[in-house]
Amino acid sequence: VREQTNVNMADVARQAGVSTATVSRALRDMPGVSIATRDRIRRIADDLSYVVSPEASGLASGSTGRVAAVVPSIDIWYFATMLAGIESVLRRADLDLLVYHVENAAERERFFDRLPARRKVDAVVVIAMPLPEQEAERLDLMGVQVVVAGGQLRDYPHVRIDDIEVAHQVVEHFTHLGHTRIAMIRTSDPAGSTWAGDLARTHGFRMAMDQAGLELDDDLIVTVPYAVDGGADAMDQLLSMAKPPTAVFAYSDEVAAGALRSLRRANLAVPEQMSICGVDNHPIADLLDLTTVHQPVEAQGAAAGQILVDIIEGRTPQQQQLVFPTHLVVRATTGPPPPDADR
Amino acid sequence: VREQTNVNMADVARQAGVSTATVSRALRDMPGVSIATRDRIRRIADDLSYVVSPEASGLASGSTGRVAAVVPSIDIWYFATMLAGIESVLRRADLDLLVYHVENAAERERFFDRLPARRKVDAVVVIAMPLPEQEAERLDLMGVQVVVAGGQLRDYPHVRIDDIEVAHQVVEHFTHLGHTRIAMIRTSDPAGSTWAGDLARTHGFRMAMDQAGLELDDDLIVTVPYAVDGGADAMDQLLSMAKPPTAVFAYSDEVAAGALRSLRRANLAVPEQMSICGVDNHPIADLLDLTTVHQPVEAQGAAAGQILVDIIEGRTPQQQQLVFPTHLVVRATTGPPPPDADR
Repeated sequence: VREQTNVNMADVARQAGVSTATVSRALRDMPGVSIATRDRIRRIADDLSYVVSPEASGLASGSTGRVAAVVPSIDIWYFATMLAGIESVLRRADLDLLVYHVENAAERERFFDRLPARRKVDAVVVIAMPLPEQEAERLDLMGVQVVVAGGQLRDYPHVRIDDIEVAHQVVEHFTHLGHTRIAMIRTSDPAGSTWAGDLARTHGFRMAMDQAGLELDDDLIVTVPYAVDGGADAMDQLLSMAKPPTAVFAYSDEVAAGALRSLRRANLAVPEQMSICGVDNHPIADLLDLTTVHQPVEAQGAAAGQILVDIIEGRTPQQQQLVFPTHLVVRATTGPPPPDADR
Repeated sequence: VREQTNVNMADVARQAGVSTATVSRALRDMPGVSIATRDRIRRIADDLSYVVSPEASGLASGSTGRVAAVVPSIDIWYFATMLAGIESVLRRADLDLLVYHVENAAERERFFDRLPARRKVDAVVVIAMPLPEQEAERLDLMGVQVVVAGGQLRDYPHVRIDDIEVAHQVVEHFTHLGHTRIAMIRTSDPAGSTWAGDLARTHGFRMAMDQAGLELDDDLIVTVPYAVDGGADAMDQLLSMAKPPTAVFAYSDEVAAGALRSLRRANLAVPEQMSICGVDNHPIADLLDLTTVHQPVEAQGAAAGQILVDIIEGRTPQQQQLVFPTHLVVRATTGPPPPDADR
């Protein structure tokens, strides 16, 4: 066995013209790299006398038996349910789950900066949140495997829904009911990071409106912080427009719940005067009789957990890019637009 | 330093006529043991040549830097919020949180059976769930410190609310409104374990009814599995009575939410025909305009986290038995009984 040299993975990546993630994957025989590329990377690594360090290649040994889950919030239903799904699979494989709540961009950076060096875990599952590029590279270099649940980052194995399709399902439902003036409540990160789910749903909304031949004023897309109160504020804002929408696509059921509260306080009848549709099929959707797009959250967590178990136990995961289907659940908050809605 | 002998903590406990928990506490200079008892236990330990093993006494060294949280569910708001509170404090102290979901009595037993021997953690926080007596003894013997959040077990340090007071706050609210026929929806564990919170709220309910001089038929206390659907079933059961109650105390807001759904489906006006009050001040309580008893869940988690940090860092926690106050939040689901409610 050769000793580790001063050459690092970034040198190999630079010479091969690929990312460090691809180098890491090629040298560890992970899928997602073509045979030609893999062989080329290996030749370059050989030429440079680069050897994957035992630490970096030691994934299969499951040296710590622990997985870190990184979440932007523990007590929001979506993240808690994702954690429950991941934990259920890890537990059966006798792996332990460490939970890290990183609240903002600075904490996120610090977390990803410190985690790899301490070798606390074999793998990290990032739940539906951004991962700074520089920190992703560092994880690659240290051989900490990254799996993404509820989103997509770089070429990491991931489990998610199709957020563009989600937006299409909502817009199609509204247009079939006869709505033409449709708004969207999207959500923002206080630190200004972009979140894949929000970007994709907003993009999908624009696409679907365009495909339906409907005009989309910029002020019909309202951006608020993720929270019930954010949804309430956004609806207040939409109601104050000279010509309010007749239907609203809310980023999530929690955001929709806040919007419903504003409608109730404004004494507007739902769906007679305003239709609203959320996303998730959160338990409150049933309680509020809210029309929504169902996504299987716990199942996504369990699938991400299975990928983690496979990787840690040295197997190639059967599937590395899982996209779970979503479907509309029609309840009592959507209906045809009011008869006077036409200009 | 003397070597560990064959004498174990149970021998010391037996001879001293105290629990192993008390022995453990006395030998580690933890509070909660009188000076006289501590000195007596130490003499007995000396006589028996018992020495706390380095493992068992190594808490202050923070040997693993990890805490295990054991929860009956990750994705129920109460537990997720408690975890968030605990994690926030551990994170600041640079301690890691392992999360274990144990679903039933068998898993609970297996978990507590296996955890100590593996020395994975310095401490365990048990969140509002039963802990088998035998396993508690084992944790004591291995020197794994136990802290309880949202409940009370043996003489462990704990953080909780006063569940008896909660029941009094609800019953007083109902009686002030004029209700005399008051029901309670309590919750059960499928495995038949007793949960401290449920027992105390039920006991408090009986006490408060008695103090108010009100009759309490046995069929006015309905027991259902903890879930929204459980609440719905319980309300259906209460509505089918020859003489239904006019006010219902639900174990939690989630249970109350299910009960509200049943009332809506039965076309009964709330609160005109039926009053309902939950417990928690869960975010859905605001959305459903539900009257409830507020309890500070995240703060309880944070306080439990602080006790854990103090213990692991070798300090005596400032407070070991914290009882957080609760208060009634009156919203739209409680009002006077219907005029025809008198017999």
